[in-house]
Parts: sequence; structure tokens; C-alpha cells
Amino acid sequence: MNKVFGGMAASLDGYIASKDGDMSWLNNSMAKGEDYGFAETIKRTGIYIIGANTYRGMLGSGMAGGKDMTPTYVITHDQDLKKGSQTQLYSGDLTTLAKKAKSETDKDICIFGGGNILTQFIELNLVDEITISIVPVLLGDGTPFFGKMHVFKKLKLSECKEYKSGIVTLTYKPQ
Amino acid sequence: MNKVFGGMAASLDGYIASKDGDMSWLNNSMAKGEDYGFAETIKRTGIYIIGANTYRGMLGSGMAGGKDMTPTYVITHDQDLKKGSQTQLYSGDLTTLAKKAKSETDKDICIFGGGNILTQFIELNLVDEITISIVPVLLGDGTPFFGKMHVFKKLKLSECKEYKSGIVTLTYKPQ
Repeated sequence: MNKVFGGMAASLDGYIASKDGDMSWLNNSMAKGEDYGFAETIKRTGIYIIGANTYRGMLGSGMAGGKDMTPTYVITHDQDLKKGSQTQLYSGDLTTLAKKAKSETDKDICIFGGGNILTQFIELNLVDEITISIVPVLLGDGTPFFGKMHVFKKLKLSECKEYKSGIVTLTYKPQ
Repeated sequence: MNKVFGGMAASLDGYIASKDGDMSWLNNSMAKGEDYGFAETIKRTGIYIIGANTYRGMLGSGMAGGKDMTPTYVITHDQDLKKGSQTQLYSGDLTTLAKKAKSETDKDICIFGGGNILTQFIELNLVDEITISIVPVLLGDGTPFFGKMHVFKKLKLSECKEYKSGIVTLTYKPQ
């Protein structure tokens, strides 16, 4: 059975991006030869589900839109958003989307980007695994990994991995 | 040379207390026989610096005000706050307070409670060590461990300790 998982790098104070969008805090924290599970994430993912802001950032960087891209659903109400051949815009029910995505691939579904999207999936009990790579910096402000939720969730720690760079990757399964 | 350190337990989404103040999420997550460094924290601390809200909570629970309490500075502008014989109210400059507290004990200074106080000390470069015990729950909302800051801080991970309960204690030194 394929899984829905969400995972990103975040500062110790819980931000995935600084206010000005500068990513040097992340790039400067990573050490040569350390992979942090990125290769494994790419390998296991059959479909990405991402937020509109993350997608706009990817379009700007030239990372999105190509034919070779892994199939991606972009959660957005903006039907004018430019899209590539592997991208579909989606504005409907998230439970339906999770089920649909699972049926379209044998591999796993990765929820990537802004904390709000991931948090909505968690709140709906659609996430099987959460991975957070805690980068040893305090950003002070920015885009939070987790949005606010109206529910309490108990988690089970399934892995704790410490890297020489000081990055710690924690993997949890919601209970 | 004695140190100024701040440390608390927080949910994975970064809250030290839920909105309704219920602490069962923390108590239920701890396992028998696991100490999480609390005994060591008490042993090494000569003076506590805490926020007014934390102190009000302690007064309510009967934990504060006794003669045997470790000397404590409460950061507050409310000079009417009830205080015990070991408690002093403080509303002045935090750099002066850190220096003063260090001179009054040979042991370490523990900044305890609401994230805002700790964040102010970090912003002023007054903190030698930050310890966060990440509890495997998502609270969704509440009192954040870290307040917003106007500065970027690089940290050095000095310890990563995983407990059977799934609690992970991370210790950092600001650079």
C-alpha cells in the first residue's frame, strides 16, 4: 500500500523559508556528502502534491513545467496558473485528491512545500508519515512548516538521524 | 564561567503550552524512568529568570513563593505581582540582568517559560545554550517556544538524544 508523506527542511524555530525567500541559510547548513534522504524521497515519490506558492517559486527557478517532471498536483483556485505537461491544477476536496493520487501510482505521494497544505492533510488524517529535517539556525520569521490546526495529534517517532552538519532528521507516523 | 541557558519541552509544531493550558499532552508523553535532563537542569541552576505568565502559573500551582525555592527573577512591569522571599520582580534592561544574575551565583542561569523571554535573550546574544525536548505531538495552536526575532542566528548542535518515549532532546550553542 503506497503512503502519503510530507517532509521538508525547517529552521529550529519552525520556518521553511525566510521572509525574503533567501535560501542561503539552508544551502550553507548542508555538508558535502550528506544527503538527508533527498535521493530516497525522489526515488519513492510517484506524485507530488504542492501548494500554489511553492509552484510559483518552482516556475520562477525553472524547476517546473518540464516533460520529465514527476506528475504533480498544484492545490490552487487560480486556474490561470501556467502549467507544464506533467502538472494538474486542483481546487477540490483533499480526501478525494489523496485517494485519486494513490490510485494513479504504485509509488508514494509526497506533499511538498508550504506548511498550510501539509497541515490540512494532517488534520484530515490523510498523512502516513511526516519527516522534518531540523536545520541548526533560527530564522526569526518567515513561512512556518506547520500551520495552525484545530485538532490534537499524537505522533510516533519512527526515526531520529543526526548528521555531522548538525541537521537532525526526525520521522513520525501520526497515530 | 557560568552559563545562561534556556530549555523546555515543546510539541513538534513548536508550542510549549496548549491554548487551554492543559499539560496532559506533556505528562502523557513522558515514560517512566526517563528523566530528559530535568534533574541535571535543577542541579546546575543557581538562578531562574522567568516570564510573568509562567510565574502566575507557578503561583497558581503552589510551586512558587516558598523559602526553599531557587532564587528567581520574574520579568514583569506589574509591580503588584505577589512575590515570595526568593523572588524578585525585574523590569529593566536584560543585558544588565544577565550580568547581575551571573555575578550572584557560581551556578548556571536558567531562562524558563514563555518563548518571548528566551527569544529576547537570544536576540541580545545573552544565551550560551538552548535545549529543546521535542515531544511527539502536534498541538495545533498555543504558546510558541520561539517568538519572532529580527535577527538570523546560526546554531551549533552539541547534543541529540533520543528517548524510548519518542521524545528527542536537542541542545544547541548559538554561534
